[in-house]
Amino acid sequence: MLKTDIQIAQESTMLHIRDVAGKIGLSEDDLDFYGKYKAKISLEVLKRNKDKEDAKLILVTAINPTPAGEGKSTVTVGLGQALNRIGKKTVIALREPSLGPVFGVKGGAAGGGYSQVVPMEDINLHFTGDMHAITTTNNLLAAAIDNHIHQGNALNLDIRRILFKRVMDMNDRSLRQVNVGLGGKPNGFPREDGFMITVASEVMAILCLATSLEDLKERMGEIMIGYNLQGEPVFAKDLKVQGAMALLMKDAIMPNLVQTLENTPAIIHGGPFANIAHGCNSILATQTALKLGDYVVTEAGFGADLGAEKFLDIKCRFGGLNPSAVVIVATVRALKHHGGVLKADLSTPNVDALKKGIVNLEKQIENIRKFNLEPVVAINRFMSDSVEELQFIEEFLNNIHVNVALTEVWEKGGEGGEALAHKVVEVAEKSGTYKPLYDVDKSIKEKIETIVKEIYGGSSVAYSAQAEKTIKEIEAMGLHKKPICMAKTQYSLSDNPKLLGAPKNFEVKVNEVKLSNGAGFIVCLTGDIMTMPGLPKVPAANLMDIDEEGNIVGLF
Amino acid sequence: MLKTDIQIAQESTMLHIRDVAGKIGLSEDDLDFYGKYKAKISLEVLKRNKDKEDAKLILVTAINPTPAGEGKSTVTVGLGQALNRIGKKTVIALREPSLGPVFGVKGGAAGGGYSQVVPMEDINLHFTGDMHAITTTNNLLAAAIDNHIHQGNALNLDIRRILFKRVMDMNDRSLRQVNVGLGGKPNGFPREDGFMITVASEVMAILCLATSLEDLKERMGEIMIGYNLQGEPVFAKDLKVQGAMALLMKDAIMPNLVQTLENTPAIIHGGPFANIAHGCNSILATQTALKLGDYVVTEAGFGADLGAEKFLDIKCRFGGLNPSAVVIVATVRALKHHGGVLKADLSTPNVDALKKGIVNLEKQIENIRKFNLEPVVAINRFMSDSVEELQFIEEFLNNIHVNVALTEVWEKGGEGGEALAHKVVEVAEKSGTYKPLYDVDKSIKEKIETIVKEIYGGSSVAYSAQAEKTIKEIEAMGLHKKPICMAKTQYSLSDNPKLLGAPKNFEVKVNEVKLSNGAGFIVCLTGDIMTMPGLPKVPAANLMDIDEEGNIVGLF
Repeated sequence: MLKTDIQIAQESTMLHIRDVAGKIGLSEDDLDFYGKYKAKISLEVLKRNKDKEDAKLILVTAINPTPAGEGKSTVTVGLGQALNRIGKKTVIALREPSLGPVFGVKGGAAGGGYSQVVPMEDINLHFTGDMHAITTTNNLLAAAIDNHIHQGNALNLDIRRILFKRVMDMNDRSLRQVNVGLGGKPNGFPREDGFMITVASEVMAILCLATSLEDLKERMGEIMIGYNLQGEPVFAKDLKVQGAMALLMKDAIMPNLVQTLENTPAIIHGGPFANIAHGCNSILATQTALKLGDYVVTEAGFGADLGAEKFLDIKCRFGGLNPSAVVIVATVRALKHHGGVLKADLSTPNVDALKKGIVNLEKQIENIRKFNLEPVVAINRFMSDSVEELQFIEEFLNNIHVNVALTEVWEKGGEGGEALAHKVVEVAEKSGTYKPLYDVDKSIKEKIETIVKEIYGGSSVAYSAQAEKTIKEIEAMGLHKKPICMAKTQYSLSDNPKLLGAPKNFEVKVNEVKLSNGAGFIVCLTGDIMTMPGLPKVPAANLMDIDEEGNIVGLF
Repeated sequence: MLKTDIQIAQESTMLHIRDVAGKIGLSEDDLDFYGKYKAKISLEVLKRNKDKEDAKLILVTAINPTPAGEGKSTVTVGLGQALNRIGKKTVIALREPSLGPVFGVKGGAAGGGYSQVVPMEDINLHFTGDMHAITTTNNLLAAAIDNHIHQGNALNLDIRRILFKRVMDMNDRSLRQVNVGLGGKPNGFPREDGFMITVASEVMAILCLATSLEDLKERMGEIMIGYNLQGEPVFAKDLKVQGAMALLMKDAIMPNLVQTLENTPAIIHGGPFANIAHGCNSILATQTALKLGDYVVTEAGFGADLGAEKFLDIKCRFGGLNPSAVVIVATVRALKHHGGVLKADLSTPNVDALKKGIVNLEKQIENIRKFNLEPVVAINRFMSDSVEELQFIEEFLNNIHVNVALTEVWEKGGEGGEALAHKVVEVAEKSGTYKPLYDVDKSIKEKIETIVKEIYGGSSVAYSAQAEKTIKEIEAMGLHKKPICMAKTQYSLSDNPKLLGAPKNFEVKVNEVKLSNGAGFIVCLTGDIMTMPGLPKVPAANLMDIDEEGNIVGLF
């Protein structure tokens, strides 16, 4: 019987984190231990090495996700392990999982099989407390807003137009829409409000884009919390709480060090939503990793149309990062799904469906090249893949001169990723300078339309009246010279989750535009984006347990 | 100019926590470090030493608190330092402060002056994440309740009678009373709800009364969450989430080790409300401390009528603890306040007022003796105290054969507590076996009336119709054989905060009775007890800041 991820993880031999850190030149003085297998890395490490040449930065992304599963995180971890095996000192940089969803459907995630980061039970639960620090920081600002209104409302805040919401790191649909301040005068002014899950907080996006504690504090002050009764914007700094907010984040800002099952150092720090935010680990984590190895492997959320685009247009721009190669993860099964095959039939060989579906991969390759970057395709192998199918993909990619490698990192760990590692090194060693897709100084609509046409393959953009109004307001305030953060379904290149493959000539409908002024981007929402998940009928929580000896079940 | 607490704390020389632990025989294997100055102590330490003789346990309590301030925590820390100085290996056991109030009026607290626990900025903020674990555990159960109702409500939960509330570790009055589940079918069933501050969660009380992880899990399963439509009680275990709840608490259950300014080991763990809960640090922390020193100094919330009574009738009973002495902290200023002097006039010598007010101290002494324990009075000296006033107190206590010592621990640290330490040792070395005040098998009303008459000095108890009904329900369910947890004003021996001194012949009005079935006690509420504080007009948060070098202002 196949072992579960938690079984494999709990059977692994972890090194004391002191020894993992030692491999990349970090001493005990550079670290704050959190138990024996987790540590925070001092920001001094980055400051001390600021003139040191950066490692090669490799982004792992994917085709548009399907119910078949692509294994992007697993390939990221496996590739990091593989690069180490072929002699490149490698550090992996990943996002932190959100605690809430662990109790819903997911049950935990930190790679899989023999390509996992550990201790997975801690990484999936409280880890080093970063999510809790973000929750508290967000909710301090929220409490300060309602307190300001209650205590006389000197800023004239319009309680009908408060934009900043409370958060909780829990899947709790009952909190999506609430009335607060009920019960009369001692309890403040009643108003409509709602909770988001913590990773949707602008504080999370800020943590991931800040380049220092000062920068973090300044960005938190710039959060636009709502409008006053004169229709003017009001910011967090008007409430004078950005100092206290920064104080609450003083430990959370430090990147976290853990290890993979093969003791490869992994820095896991920050995990913003990949729709209403940019879906990448923190800039400080990536920058720190770049000073500690020869190679850094990182990933971005969802498929390349969302994840890689935002990584390149938002994170790399703010962080001054220059990636050297992009790995696009695909599977035979997922490409067949893009070719119209139902989930139940994905195990049956079907080269015709593969031919139809491979256009999704082809479009993502074309997109990556628009950033002056060269992609490497990783085919994450499954037992059901036929030789004919694998051969077809290889020939297809050879014809368009794209590097491709099979990986078996779930089953074999780093060894299963060595072929990919060699291809990645080959591409990375001859890489040039990447360029973002658009100029941030352009108008909001120009930027949106560039992404829709160049990356998604759409033909036009339609704006709701609400979106038109907000765009005008943001431009009137002069706050529009920021990158765009598209919130779109991850399942399609278009804004319609049912359009698989590589659709063309579609219109993208923009329902809502939101200014994340502290994070420094403009969110463009297409369709309904859920910012507070719910629990399923039988939550994963119901299967979880721990005994007196610390044996855990139900995380998988 | 006097230094602030945070200045004194930041100027102190802390030992690495490894070395503090070494003083009490703990090795690195017994610890999980959280940075360099905090550690969690493995529960194995207690298991390994279970047959070892316990240290002497000293409780520090106080007269009824006044606006003048008594300095109970400061005396607790100072006494611990002093005992070490006179050759007794001493461990201090304290409650964890709640993060929320730090941003309100308080600005932080962990003793004061030269009798503080450090690092105070961490202890007052996220510390080792225990509060966040409790918040999450509480809110997982809350989400599971609403999810159960949304998914078909197989248990027939009555949404008008859900007793279990969400919590947040923030002073946020707008969350006291809310409507949740608004917005239609996808967001669940609408109902009235409210948030409490985290320390008011039953999960916190459970953490502090549990004697193992198994016991913790079982108690969490026993939380009564509400009634079904048939009027029968429904428990957390009916939702099958106690395993996941225990998993979330796997680290939080371990006691936290820090140090005082004089490097005395201090275990800080758990901090339940002292009104709707029992107001003491965890049993596991106290039991662990008792295995590691010759003396353990601990404290309980509010004055002796609430704190000491609950410590002795709830915590010691559940934990099998046998205290050896009780220190009652008083100040000249506070006793004059009990004698009718206004706050502005407390610096003026006034022996007549002192004579009137000392009855409060006299009654607390009488109460402690009812538990077969001998009190030692600590007069926490202030600059404004006159020789006549101090002499009067000494003579008064000599006449009733009570040990008394002056302390100057704020100004002088442990040295200022040596006189007290000698008195405490004298009493503790000849102590016997303490006895609780009442038999838990008695009826709820008998137990309440025993406390009111014996401890408060009242003559009768009046019950609201609601309280009468709940008492009948609890007794009908057979769940009444538990200690009573009185929720009463801390400012008076009575339930009226204006009755200072030692009032007599008063009636106590019981408004509401609540079963904390998981924690294992019955809460009896007199008057309005606030379980979610609000922020003041100028919150302490507005004065807080941190710079790039980590210099902190605004915690004091």
